Amino acid sequence: MTENQHGHVDVTTATLSEELVDRSSTASPAVAEYALWLGDDSLILAQQLGWWISRAPELEEDVALGNIALDLLGHARSLLHYAGTATGRTEDDLAYFRDESEFRSAHLVEQPNGDFAHTLVRQAVVSVYLFELYSALADSTDATLSAIAGKAVKEVDYHRDHAAQWILRLALGTDESRRRLLVALADLWPYVDELFRDEPLLAELGAVAVRPSTLRPAFDSAIGALFSEAELDVPIPQPAAGGGRRGHHSEYLGYLLTEMQVLARRHPGASW
Amino acid sequence: MTENQHGHVDVTTATLSEELVDRSSTASPAVAEYALWLGDDSLILAQQLGWWISRAPELEEDVALGNIALDLLGHARSLLHYAGTATGRTEDDLAYFRDESEFRSAHLVEQPNGDFAHTLVRQAVVSVYLFELYSALADSTDATLSAIAGKAVKEVDYHRDHAAQWILRLALGTDESRRRLLVALADLWPYVDELFRDEPLLAELGAVAVRPSTLRPAFDSAIGALFSEAELDVPIPQPAAGGGRRGHHSEYLGYLLTEMQVLARRHPGASW
Repeated sequence: MTENQHGHVDVTTATLSEELVDRSSTASPAVAEYALWLGDDSLILAQQLGWWISRAPELEEDVALGNIALDLLGHARSLLHYAGTATGRTEDDLAYFRDESEFRSAHLVEQPNGDFAHTLVRQAVVSVYLFELYSALADSTDATLSAIAGKAVKEVDYHRDHAAQWILRLALGTDESRRRLLVALADLWPYVDELFRDEPLLAELGAVAVRPSTLRPAFDSAIGALFSEAELDVPIPQPAAGGGRRGHHSEYLGYLLTEMQVLARRHPGASW
Repeated sequence: MTENQHGHVDVTTATLSEELVDRSSTASPAVAEYALWLGDDSLILAQQLGWWISRAPELEEDVALGNIALDLLGHARSLLHYAGTATGRTEDDLAYFRDESEFRSAHLVEQPNGDFAHTLVRQAVVSVYLFELYSALADSTDATLSAIAGKAVKEVDYHRDHAAQWILRLALGTDESRRRLLVALADLWPYVDELFRDEPLLAELGAVAVRPSTLRPAFDSAIGALFSEAELDVPIPQPAAGGGRRGHHSEYLGYLLTEMQVLARRHPGASW
């Protein structure tokens, strides 16, 4: 996308293809499925974060979360655009006209915003995970995925710093902020495990994709260092069942999709 | 605010004062009241637009509306910060700890998002109004208001183009999109009049402020040209009562404020 002098995306000339997607490259069915896993995580999380604009505890934080939401939306668009090349669908087709069982998001990103501590714990986990994922995926043998990851990792690096600052602030702030943080950790940590499970599809993809299990040591190390500074223990919960990559979703996704899709579905094919 | 290389607001170092507000300048009570009128309009509208992230009919449009929301939030922060200097309050104090009757937003920005046509009609009106307002306010004898307006007008110019493109697209698109646009025009046009009413405070402010009545000819001319191209008649409704500048609000503001303020109010003074 092109940005004008004010940092806006120029909606009249912006095309994803200019920057990230070689128009001649078409994803194979397996690569498209993988791109959906990544794209859906970012799309759902962006939707959730947009809610915070003017609802965070500080106006400065509204701006930060809004910017993060827009970054994630950009990643989602690139990934869904590429996924759609396998079947001749657009990014909008994939965002607005798939049913719940066709989504591939992980349960963690589907979890409600909750209070601010829940949102920031979710951010801390996802942004550390995505930083490791995109760092590795930048070496993908698939040129399109490599290009998307190479750009996204710089933005996710910032998201990671942002979340880390908040974890420290909540953990070492007031008794109440720490209490809420501990509740959020207990609520959300069961959903961490799913992010690192290797689905069978990965065997087909070889060096195109990143096996999430290989990211776990770096994730644990980064979270361990942060939690040590924050005087927190890393939770060791019973993992939740997961299944998002196979279309088995948490109770929350249906509501999120209804909100996301209602307008586009009310007038399919309308040139808005 | 400073932006890092990725276009993010750098939340660790960003301070409004660096860019727009001279720390030595303190608003008089009358100037502070005027800054609230402007700041509250932008704050409430930003909150409403943030909702669209991932809910618009196209992902590209999610990004555009999200960017516009963040621009407006930036203007609101600058204006509320300046307003707060009169009474030693922060921008956050003003956003989260005023009651409904202390808000100064116009009824138009409080109107619900409705369908996409309602949101874009509201955008068309507000962005043309703000463009004329900030263009004139850039010549304010108050250096802080002049600086804020001079920056904001460039962003609002883009918002105006964005809304105009959508008015044309909806008006000249399908029968259904035109029908919905006409409904939105009928619903929202009664709230246009309030934007251009001269409150008694303006007599005190002289060349510090802009009398909104003086903006009406340019507004009518710009809207007239757009509507002519869109083959639309400019509605001539009975104006709604208004009263936002005096703290008399539409039925919707209470709900918006509850959502916006609940988190900050639950823990007043907490260092999140």
